[in-house]
Amino acid sequence: MYKPLVGIIMGSKSDLPIMKDAADFLKDLGIDYELTVVSAHRTPERMFDYAQNAANRGIKVIIAGAGGAAHLPGMVASLTSLPVIGVPVKSSNSIDGWDSVLSILQMPNGIPVATVALNAAKNAGILAAQIIGTADENVFKKVEAFKNDLKAKIEESAEGLKSEGYPTNF
Amino acid sequence: MYKPLVGIIMGSKSDLPIMKDAADFLKDLGIDYELTVVSAHRTPERMFDYAQNAANRGIKVIIAGAGGAAHLPGMVASLTSLPVIGVPVKSSNSIDGWDSVLSILQMPNGIPVATVALNAAKNAGILAAQIIGTADENVFKKVEAFKNDLKAKIEESAEGLKSEGYPTNF
Amino acid sequence: MYKPLVGIIMGSKSDLPIMKDAADFLKDLGIDYELTVVSAHRTPERMFDYAQNAANRGIKVIIAGAGGAAHLPGMVASLTSLPVIGVPVKSSNSIDGWDSVLSILQMPNGIPVATVALNAAKNAGILAAQIIGTADENVFKKVEAFKNDLKAKIEESAEGLKSEGYPTNF
Amino acid sequence: MYKPLVGIIMGSKSDLPIMKDAADFLKDLGIDYELTVVSAHRTPERMFDYAQNAANRGIKVIIAGAGGAAHLPGMVASLTSLPVIGVPVKSSNSIDGWDSVLSILQMPNGIPVATVALNAAKNAGILAAQIIGTADENVFKKVEAFKNDLKAKIEESAEGLKSEGYPTNF
Amino acid sequence: MYKPLVGIIMGSKSDLPIMKDAADFLKDLGIDYELTVVSAHRTPERMFDYAQNAANRGIKVIIAGAGGAAHLPGMVASLTSLPVIGVPVKSSNSIDGWDSVLSILQMPNGIPVATVALNAAKNAGILAAQIIGTADENVFKKVEAFKNDLKAKIEESAEGLKSEGYPTNF
Amino acid sequence: MYKPLVGIIMGSKSDLPIMKDAADFLKDLGIDYELTVVSAHRTPERMFDYAQNAANRGIKVIIAGAGGAAHLPGMVASLTSLPVIGVPVKSSNSIDGWDSVLSILQMPNGIPVATVALNAAKNAGILAAQIIGTADENVFKKVEAFKNDLKAKIEESAEGLKSEGYPTNF
Amino acid sequence: MYKPLVGIIMGSKSDLPIMKDAADFLKDLGIDYELTVVSAHRTPERMFDYAQNAANRGIKVIIAGAGGAAHLPGMVASLTSLPVIGVPVKSSNSIDGWDSVLSILQMPNGIPVATVALNAAKNAGILAAQIIGTADENVFKKVEAFKNDLKAKIEESAEGLKSEGYPTNF
Amino acid sequence: MYKPLVGIIMGSKSDLPIMKDAADFLKDLGIDYELTVVSAHRTPERMFDYAQNAANRGIKVIIAGAGGAAHLPGMVASLTSLPVIGVPVKSSNSIDGWDSVLSILQMPNGIPVATVALNAAKNAGILAAQIIGTADENVFKKVEAFKNDLKAKIEESAEGLKSEGYPTNF
Repeated sequence: MYKPLVGIIMGSKSDLPIMKDAADFLKDLGIDYELTVVSAHRTPERMFDYAQNAANRGIKVIIAGAGGAAHLPGMVASLTSLPVIGVPVKSSNSIDGWDSVLSILQMPNGIPVATVALNAAKNAGILAAQIIGTADENVFKKVEAFKNDLKAKIEESAEGLKSEGYPTNF
Repeated sequence: MYKPLVGIIMGSKSDLPIMKDAADFLKDLGIDYELTVVSAHRTPERMFDYAQNAANRGIKVIIAGAGGAAHLPGMVASLTSLPVIGVPVKSSNSIDGWDSVLSILQMPNGIPVATVALNAAKNAGILAAQIIGTADENVFKKVEAFKNDLKAKIEESAEGLKSEGYPTNF
Repeated sequence: MYKPLVGIIMGSKSDLPIMKDAADFLKDLGIDYELTVVSAHRTPERMFDYAQNAANRGIKVIIAGAGGAAHLPGMVASLTSLPVIGVPVKSSNSIDGWDSVLSILQMPNGIPVATVALNAAKNAGILAAQIIGTADENVFKKVEAFKNDLKAKIEESAEGLKSEGYPTNF
Repeated sequence: MYKPLVGIIMGSKSDLPIMKDAADFLKDLGIDYELTVVSAHRTPERMFDYAQNAANRGIKVIIAGAGGAAHLPGMVASLTSLPVIGVPVKSSNSIDGWDSVLSILQMPNGIPVATVALNAAKNAGILAAQIIGTADENVFKKVEAFKNDLKAKIEESAEGLKSEGYPTNF
Repeated sequence: MYKPLVGIIMGSKSDLPIMKDAADFLKDLGIDYELTVVSAHRTPERMFDYAQNAANRGIKVIIAGAGGAAHLPGMVASLTSLPVIGVPVKSSNSIDGWDSVLSILQMPNGIPVATVALNAAKNAGILAAQIIGTADENVFKKVEAFKNDLKAKIEESAEGLKSEGYPTNF
Repeated sequence: MYKPLVGIIMGSKSDLPIMKDAADFLKDLGIDYELTVVSAHRTPERMFDYAQNAANRGIKVIIAGAGGAAHLPGMVASLTSLPVIGVPVKSSNSIDGWDSVLSILQMPNGIPVATVALNAAKNAGILAAQIIGTADENVFKKVEAFKNDLKAKIEESAEGLKSEGYPTNF
Repeated sequence: MYKPLVGIIMGSKSDLPIMKDAADFLKDLGIDYELTVVSAHRTPERMFDYAQNAANRGIKVIIAGAGGAAHLPGMVASLTSLPVIGVPVKSSNSIDGWDSVLSILQMPNGIPVATVALNAAKNAGILAAQIIGTADENVFKKVEAFKNDLKAKIEESAEGLKSEGYPTNF
Repeated sequence: MYKPLVGIIMGSKSDLPIMKDAADFLKDLGIDYELTVVSAHRTPERMFDYAQNAANRGIKVIIAGAGGAAHLPGMVASLTSLPVIGVPVKSSNSIDGWDSVLSILQMPNGIPVATVALNAAKNAGILAAQIIGTADENVFKKVEAFKNDLKAKIEESAEGLKSEGYPTNF
């Protein structure tokens, strides 16, 4: 049976183009996830249900994305003892993203949300993997490999600039 | 029996010095209210309970104040069909009040919160009275009287400046 | 005779594409409204006239939208005892909407404006309906039905994601 | 008879400690002014009256100061063809002054307000004198003398630093 | 001989599409103006020369537009006793216009700049006309006529909405 | 031997009054931690050393706090595959905390930092416990108990308001 | 042998379209430079290596550009005693450039970064030339010539406006 | 004869408590400096004079501090080919420092100002030393020694935390 460790939820299906980056990363690393729509404002009971049962259903980390007055990550965090990662989405009704960022980040003491950068769902996926990796050596190593890949790509692009004729002795 | 028409709730007792201005105004106008602490993040079930039963309990308008990532007004609005007035509180953990303002004001379409100025709980009380006044001629007239008082005070302070020697022919 | 309960006004005809969302919502709910252009800065006498006579003309709630240094909602609120809902419009001369938001929201104590999110005229319409609904059981139920619709749409879109192959046990 | 050329108005007597700097400057230059309280929100009729009669009463320039959602300067500008100078006041209910600044500065095309810096009522007084000075050679020369004084004070403080031992060959 | 009363200067020819609105308005009102490029940063001597001679050359008001770290309006104001109107331009190198606005508006006491809204060169032209109008009855009346036109256009657009079928009894 | 699971580091000893809240929470929950000063800018080699060896030394989660241009959390995250929690500190050289928040939160894709609210070191401690709790049932339960305590305190303060005479039927 | 005096580095090859303006300016002035990609977050060891060896390799000034939580300029500055010029890049993941600006500019005392305007890589190149010019009379004169060119272009565009028919006596 | 290499200027003597940090640092390193008051707005001719003669007088680097609409650094940069370091001062008339920062930082292409953090005059002094150090091995080494001192102080404070009982194995 499919046994997801990471729950990815978003306030609206319109957040999917951003939020699927989290799913894609987890898939690449072979970490089982689930993904669905849960709106704090339009389906509050569904949100309660999701948050209160996530731990029992085997979820280890929840990734929640939302835009504007983004209450989903914080409300889910208030209803579970699992770590919750918040992704501020720059939705169409957002004031340059500031509302999304502040209404996810500025949680009161007692109820943290692990906030990542605006629209940075991929980073939410990586952070979820790092959390899983604190107790799963295999996942930890996959994250390390991913980071080595990042490094290799930078070194490659540095080589690329050389071939384009940009001078350097370094 | 006491039959409150306006429910005043706040996320923390530390919001009381701000939020009591709403209560004081309603008391002055002879509008019955109730006032209690309901935290979206620390007592989510209590918040659900409050919001879902307010209409049945006879409440006509809810005033909700909170600071920082202020989810209380919006979450209550998601759980009731009553009008909800939000008071952004500049709490100690707030970034100059911007987080409180944006996380209350920037609600997605479908779930409005009637937001007033930062710390403006008195205005929340006045707005609640105006809403009650749409169907209660007596309250409407009391609001008018209150506004006439405001006018009189300004005219008085204009007279005061004259006696202090500031020149004017007006 | 047509007897509007909600007055929708805006500072410029260029605000109509935003502001008509309020009218459309009220129409859907069968609440009579009127809609016209009233500019605080270009037709101050017309604004006075509108605001001072609205209550006598049977209006119960005023929705006022404006952009930039948006004085219409606050000035109308100063001239009537009806509740006034302000819609900050991100007009072409606005600095990312901040001017519209702050000059509507930050009213001094005594004269509240029930502010909704930037460009959120639909929410203004819903809020007006909720205010009417405090004394009209029929309207209250229509708002409830509208909110149930929102919920159903989210649940539908959650089902949609399943059929697109996104895994979930929830 | 006292015949003021500059009208100084403010939204609340609490703005006086800021706004009197304009009066003091005009007094120093021997330009007759008047000063009173006119609130856009609490005394809208008084504001109409003031703005519409200022020109006939001999006023040449209006200085209007207000804080928060500061509508006084812009509304007065809408009701007169005189130049209006706006002073954003950082009042107690202001969000760091941003609301005052934006709701005075960001006027729509057609109705300008000559905005000065936050709390800079003295600059409003100087600007009023400069406007009077465009047609009054005597006032123009007094402004020039004032500016020469400013220069002299800087040169003096530069000398002061030398005597305190700060080295310079300049 | 052409005898301009208003000098319009800008920091770069790229500001012309914005700044010509000031020229167009003054032309419409029959007020002679001049228009040229004067850069505070690239031609500081030219700026000195312009600002120090403007009054002697018969100029009564200077309109200065610039973007980014916009020093032109303030520096010109430091070098003349004429009133200087500043137009913050949202140039390509500007951070959403904030830099232009703040570096023109926030002048220290002693050296005011009459700042108008972002990109609001038309308002700068109107303000210049109002300043000229303080001593020229003819210009004052033309500004009044212009404002009456604005009013008529709003009333016309209100009629337009009626014909489009938007209901109103007002 | 003392075997810390959580490493708490800060850019300057002046951050200690904020950062010790994280230590205090972990101590209360019986989770071993270490705490020291590591400055990205003043001791870059020490930072490298710390970040690269943390995992081998048995650390599971790193909490890093810094103010102003706060590079410590992000740089540590670049050098380890452990989850890194960032605490933006409103230090004396900070512009209202915005620099601290943005330079920690806005990490590029590939290198997440789990950011908490401004000065919210306690939340960093709770989040670290939640991460440990994903694989340690005992810690998970302690977090649940902590959250139940929060709830109890709110209910208590609601009772307190009743005894102070604030009316409520809820 | 090519002996670069200025090292231009950037956090990602996607910054090249901005950063090459620095290279182009230095080339125009005949100042040898090198240009490569060095990422603080993806290649921290490479960054250490680059920064610690730059002085020994003959580099006199480092120009570092980065976007979002931009740590490259500040981290390089912490690892060398050479002057470091920071270019905030408005990258795709940036919140209107504010994060880039603040995380480069707001360095703690002890470790300055000479910050230029958002995306202003050309200014970084000019500043580097000015620094070289403090000890190289030849370069100093080339910078002077460049500035004279800027002046000539403005005067030319002023002439251009005359020929387009814009009136001026200046 | 005293032969200063660094010129420290400020717009007002009230900036001295901030700006003297630059002087103190240079004195500690044995680099000759001069310090005086030069106001762009109140003494524009003095500013011209200072900026145009600095290079001939032997100055190698200019440090200019100012607050609010801070034009001094940018105007000086427009009048010299020397590198100019700008210190944004959070003066009493500043809006939280944003005006000072933006009006110094956001210079147009062609005229850079090397901007340091708000109030960071010490960093301006260090940067000046680094610039001198590009051609003076002795100064370069003194900067290195200063940075080693910073490192030592951090390591010391880490030891201090150990003695205060904070646990660490690092």
